[in-house]
Amino acid sequence: MDFAFDARTEELRSRLLDFMDEFVHPAEPVLAAQLADPDRVPWTIPPVVGELKAAAKERGLWNLFLPGEEGAGLTNLQYAPLAEITGRSVLLAPPALNCAAPDTGNMEVLAQFGDEAQKKQWLQPLLEGSIRSAFAMTEPDVASSDATNITTRIERDGDEYVVNGRKWYITGAMNPECRILIVMGKTDPGAPAHRQQSMILVPRDTPGVTVVRGMTVFGYEDSDHGGHAEIRFEDVRVPASNLIGEEGSGFAIAQARLGPGRIHHCMRAIGVAERALELMCRRASERIAFGRPLADQGVVQEWIAESRVRIEQARLLVLKTAWLMDTVGNRGAHTEIQAIKIAVPSAVEWILDKAVQAHGAAGVSQDTVLAQLWAGNRTLRLADGPDEVHRRSLARRELRRYQEK
Amino acid sequence: MDFAFDARTEELRSRLLDFMDEFVHPAEPVLAAQLADPDRVPWTIPPVVGELKAAAKERGLWNLFLPGEEGAGLTNLQYAPLAEITGRSVLLAPPALNCAAPDTGNMEVLAQFGDEAQKKQWLQPLLEGSIRSAFAMTEPDVASSDATNITTRIERDGDEYVVNGRKWYITGAMNPECRILIVMGKTDPGAPAHRQQSMILVPRDTPGVTVVRGMTVFGYEDSDHGGHAEIRFEDVRVPASNLIGEEGSGFAIAQARLGPGRIHHCMRAIGVAERALELMCRRASERIAFGRPLADQGVVQEWIAESRVRIEQARLLVLKTAWLMDTVGNRGAHTEIQAIKIAVPSAVEWILDKAVQAHGAAGVSQDTVLAQLWAGNRTLRLADGPDEVHRRSLARRELRRYQEK
Amino acid sequence: MDFAFDARTEELRSRLLDFMDEFVHPAEPVLAAQLADPDRVPWTIPPVVGELKAAAKERGLWNLFLPGEEGAGLTNLQYAPLAEITGRSVLLAPPALNCAAPDTGNMEVLAQFGDEAQKKQWLQPLLEGSIRSAFAMTEPDVASSDATNITTRIERDGDEYVVNGRKWYITGAMNPECRILIVMGKTDPGAPAHRQQSMILVPRDTPGVTVVRGMTVFGYEDSDHGGHAEIRFEDVRVPASNLIGEEGSGFAIAQARLGPGRIHHCMRAIGVAERALELMCRRASERIAFGRPLADQGVVQEWIAESRVRIEQARLLVLKTAWLMDTVGNRGAHTEIQAIKIAVPSAVEWILDKAVQAHGAAGVSQDTVLAQLWAGNRTLRLADGPDEVHRRSLARRELRRYQEK
Amino acid sequence: MDFAFDARTEELRSRLLDFMDEFVHPAEPVLAAQLADPDRVPWTIPPVVGELKAAAKERGLWNLFLPGEEGAGLTNLQYAPLAEITGRSVLLAPPALNCAAPDTGNMEVLAQFGDEAQKKQWLQPLLEGSIRSAFAMTEPDVASSDATNITTRIERDGDEYVVNGRKWYITGAMNPECRILIVMGKTDPGAPAHRQQSMILVPRDTPGVTVVRGMTVFGYEDSDHGGHAEIRFEDVRVPASNLIGEEGSGFAIAQARLGPGRIHHCMRAIGVAERALELMCRRASERIAFGRPLADQGVVQEWIAESRVRIEQARLLVLKTAWLMDTVGNRGAHTEIQAIKIAVPSAVEWILDKAVQAHGAAGVSQDTVLAQLWAGNRTLRLADGPDEVHRRSLARRELRRYQEK
Repeated sequence: MDFAFDARTEELRSRLLDFMDEFVHPAEPVLAAQLADPDRVPWTIPPVVGELKAAAKERGLWNLFLPGEEGAGLTNLQYAPLAEITGRSVLLAPPALNCAAPDTGNMEVLAQFGDEAQKKQWLQPLLEGSIRSAFAMTEPDVASSDATNITTRIERDGDEYVVNGRKWYITGAMNPECRILIVMGKTDPGAPAHRQQSMILVPRDTPGVTVVRGMTVFGYEDSDHGGHAEIRFEDVRVPASNLIGEEGSGFAIAQARLGPGRIHHCMRAIGVAERALELMCRRASERIAFGRPLADQGVVQEWIAESRVRIEQARLLVLKTAWLMDTVGNRGAHTEIQAIKIAVPSAVEWILDKAVQAHGAAGVSQDTVLAQLWAGNRTLRLADGPDEVHRRSLARRELRRYQEK
Repeated sequence: MDFAFDARTEELRSRLLDFMDEFVHPAEPVLAAQLADPDRVPWTIPPVVGELKAAAKERGLWNLFLPGEEGAGLTNLQYAPLAEITGRSVLLAPPALNCAAPDTGNMEVLAQFGDEAQKKQWLQPLLEGSIRSAFAMTEPDVASSDATNITTRIERDGDEYVVNGRKWYITGAMNPECRILIVMGKTDPGAPAHRQQSMILVPRDTPGVTVVRGMTVFGYEDSDHGGHAEIRFEDVRVPASNLIGEEGSGFAIAQARLGPGRIHHCMRAIGVAERALELMCRRASERIAFGRPLADQGVVQEWIAESRVRIEQARLLVLKTAWLMDTVGNRGAHTEIQAIKIAVPSAVEWILDKAVQAHGAAGVSQDTVLAQLWAGNRTLRLADGPDEVHRRSLARRELRRYQEK
Repeated sequence: MDFAFDARTEELRSRLLDFMDEFVHPAEPVLAAQLADPDRVPWTIPPVVGELKAAAKERGLWNLFLPGEEGAGLTNLQYAPLAEITGRSVLLAPPALNCAAPDTGNMEVLAQFGDEAQKKQWLQPLLEGSIRSAFAMTEPDVASSDATNITTRIERDGDEYVVNGRKWYITGAMNPECRILIVMGKTDPGAPAHRQQSMILVPRDTPGVTVVRGMTVFGYEDSDHGGHAEIRFEDVRVPASNLIGEEGSGFAIAQARLGPGRIHHCMRAIGVAERALELMCRRASERIAFGRPLADQGVVQEWIAESRVRIEQARLLVLKTAWLMDTVGNRGAHTEIQAIKIAVPSAVEWILDKAVQAHGAAGVSQDTVLAQLWAGNRTLRLADGPDEVHRRSLARRELRRYQEK
Repeated sequence: MDFAFDARTEELRSRLLDFMDEFVHPAEPVLAAQLADPDRVPWTIPPVVGELKAAAKERGLWNLFLPGEEGAGLTNLQYAPLAEITGRSVLLAPPALNCAAPDTGNMEVLAQFGDEAQKKQWLQPLLEGSIRSAFAMTEPDVASSDATNITTRIERDGDEYVVNGRKWYITGAMNPECRILIVMGKTDPGAPAHRQQSMILVPRDTPGVTVVRGMTVFGYEDSDHGGHAEIRFEDVRVPASNLIGEEGSGFAIAQARLGPGRIHHCMRAIGVAERALELMCRRASERIAFGRPLADQGVVQEWIAESRVRIEQARLLVLKTAWLMDTVGNRGAHTEIQAIKIAVPSAVEWILDKAVQAHGAAGVSQDTVLAQLWAGNRTLRLADGPDEVHRRSLARRELRRYQEK
């Protein structure tokens, strides 16, 4: 057992931290200004992101999330502390490094399950960062925590598939640079529950695809990264070759996508929490109330201490999960992946809440990043299944340990 | 001791409930549509509010918050359950009844401390609902929980006062119909701590008043009720007769304003919680997950039971506080006013969080009112002093009971 | 609506407070000494209790819990604040006033459902305080939250009933002065679920009754009030006339007993919390750590403020429940009775935990009453059904309000 | 970074697990029976402990806690998972392996700071397990979280030191086999704050040492491991050579003792939590309520899942702390040692509370180990400084990171 990072991780951490200081943090006010520009084309990615991407690519800080030859070849354990660092500027650093959801998950799906043509057409430009993508799974009318509920249809018709359905909270899809959607739907509603679904590539400009509106998260449109679209698919026709893998493999692909997706979110969330704690400490040191800095007040000290303790615990659980994924595979790490899904967002939410409180009105405003971070993190308690579903599943596995004996 | 409402309260509750069903709830989608109208003049109050006001006035459901002859003459205890009912549609019902903050507090100040001319010029149209107002106290650079920190200057210059300072989160002040600001500032920085401040009437269109921007609350602009403005006062000159009360009375007026202000917020918050619980129950009854309604799941049942228990406790504390204010005065009810400030928003926040969670993605979206209610309620843990300040003060009073003996 | 106590309540409160100061609190160290006396006969009630009983009886502070002519004739609302006061010295005051569980519930059962002979033989001496009693319902092998689970058999055999079964946590039954047990068992396992049970009077010295051992509560034997016995019933024969009510009425009698029983526990628990808060405040004022009293430290102030707020809310909910029981009956107050069962013990537990923490090692020791109070209160989250059962039931009723519409 | 145990750890874990199954768990009912034996000499260690000690020693499972040649030579990281395993039977396994507090800390002090004569006389028999010891630091009258408060005097008088003072909660000291006390007191009240204290060896049978009484923890005497004594020292004379280290070194020795002491407690507490979770799962699987096992109920599933997640996080934090102590020293691991002190006992308390709740009345009784485990764990939130002190200290260090920049 050893809690030190390996040499490659340390080297990348060092380079990434420099990059954050030199490029990313200074770009934060630039992003804010570009987002507030009244002449901005709605939902487009602000130009500063492109500049950061160029700088990151040049420095080899690119596609760090992707194992294997197509990416940086890092293990989950090596990537975790890097992803955490990007979480410290979560609106800018992940896209700058081409490591932002949902592109990361989509690239993983294409790298693992795509055929050569699909890789050439879509994976290549995604890896280069020249296009963006979206993942269309969640539907408004059913509990998306249970993929077997999905009602979107993908029907074969000669050399084509025809897609019909309604999706929402499709992150990134409001952005016109988002060119391709991976759509989950049912090809065979009569098959066994986990063989009914398939995934298919649908270019965003295909006739029949209607981007209805941007869904908000608390009051945020999240237009910096392409928002969260509601999309209608009406008799959308794509070539049969757009199917990823084979018919009926959609559930399995979704499962394969989820593990890394969850841990990436959690890694970044640790960085979000570190940022919040730093802001809380700085504010507490500067703000005077009733004659002394907030930092001298016992209640604020409790917040700070608890935040530090919760961050340390959350980080260790994420790192161990990454290590398990590397050593026994995503399936073997199933319990731990659920555990971080349960533990990390709620810990980070608690810390963000206290950071907001320490900032007073500024904390809920647009003048700090805290309220927006809070809103983004809040969705993690819901995304791909509410925590309650994961707790139930984890408990059943725990119970089985004793029931089998 | 008796927990039944008196006859007048029952009669008004009945009429108000009818009004909610007949007018207010049906107007909720109308409000949403008017707010979303691309042709809307920014920050104006949507026309449906005016229509509701006319209907409410006609039915005598008007100025219920205001005791004495100028208002409906209700006690706090009589008003509390009515304010709660308006909280069930908190964006619409309070303004419809001319019972929305900050106008309510401003009318109280004018009724209690204004001279005849001030009453005629400003209280009258406010009572009639023909103008709106704002209360400019909070400043970005100091802890507003301690009014002695205020830095805005109000300086006498001949027959005028000159106001200089910067305020933010001035609710309602983005709205062009907001005609008058009550501004808190220092007339005599050399006086004893609680005699330095004064309040003065500043028409919003006075030269030197710059409405800088709308502050957001977790992404929300709250433009339906005039947003939350940042305002700069630069050499703003108003007649000396605009001073409310005498020089140095600002702190005392602020204190007088706070008690009713806090309890009104708490009363409405109980209604917000009832709305959230109703939405949670309805959703839980309708939504199927893993083969049965959410309502059958133990965890959701715990949320519902806890919500009911917390609402009952919060309501009783608010009602008792109202009764104390009526019987021993705001000063005598000081502990209880702080107690509801501490207890109610956090209870309501817990309930809203669970209601959001039960709704999944819809809960954080614009398709339910929950996320917006959450954001609005969250600010109550900060507004006019964070909870931590109130807990400290309450604890000291509690300790004194035993230290004196 | 009115939050003032009526004149009779005020008068009794005043007399009871005097009695507490003059008799009960001074007797607390006497009780401790008598309990620690090595020559004490195990499980007997220490003599100081008898002295207090005589004093209370003389002052008319007697059987206050019992409505109607047989008792003091108070309403629940009148009794509630008195029971709370007794909770401030919960080991001494309730038995001193002949208002201690389980005798209270047993007297209610006999007053309401007993026949004349039963009343004469058992109710009379209980009302006089010359004997004690126990209530034998809980069984170790089944979930006692569901009375239909009970396995003890009560079988008719000629003019007698024969009782067989095993009970535990039979409070008071270790005490040799406990003369009579009310035993719940099944007379007809084939009847509908709620008509299978009956209650029967079993003198503790009946052959076949074996008091096996005293059960502990977090290490406490609670021998001051007769402990918590495990009892075996083996072919225990009593006259058929010992049956209370008719065969099959046991469930209904148990239900009738529960409402008052729960609210009495909750009333006293409020007094326990007040005592804990007082001890916490005194300790915080006296104890110096790091150069200043605990009372000056923000975290301790938060505990104190939160304690006060929670007590106020809990008390109001209890009082309203008492009022409802008086005005619409126990059945009509069902939701509220469950609500206090859920809300009060957990609030009091939180306060006791903080009071313990403020006392350091003394808090967990025999030198303060806090640890023992904590243990006693902890059982209320389990007694007559764990909170989880009550929350589920309350939630279902809440859900029905919306499902029926 | 690597989360796998090394080979030596795995080998010892395997042997220890076998020992637990073969010897320790079967001895648990034996211990209970011996403790309940009416003929038992009060406060003596039940004989089964001695038998287990012999068996463990024979198997080389002995003094595992002690680094260096005098002990098993394990690192903290190697010992941690072993200590955790002993926590699964925390009344028996630690003493069986000669790894029970306070002997462990006392052996460390003697090994590190004792001279040869002291080692020969006291360390040797302690290492052999032939005597027990106690550590007399806490005093009833001062906040023991701040060692500078200590009032016990150790005064030089010729070739002797004279000890006067009052201590309490001296764990193990009721046991007549406890032969030696390490006493903390002031040799020079005029020296700088951290140079006033010294530690001195006082045989328990020295004239002037009065073991006053056993302090309880909630209702437990903890007589299985020698209870918690109150001790009076009145003109107690010991040879000057009994001083450990030099005059004024007491504070430094105490600090050195605390780090390992805290982490050992936390390691074992993880094992306690695992035991509680196992008992909760077994109970939930067996107990039927309302027609199905508790294990099927959502609320119980939440408890189980949360317990698992909290245990994993707590364990990782403990392991990382152990690794830091090994790699950068106790001083370098200061923050983490405080973090586990804050995080672990409260996590374990939560789990124990839920396990108790799942067991109903059995959970608070002597028929499961849960209530006793709860009480023992509860003291960890107080022992050597309440959590609040540690949070404050940790927060200050965190704040300094940002204030220095």
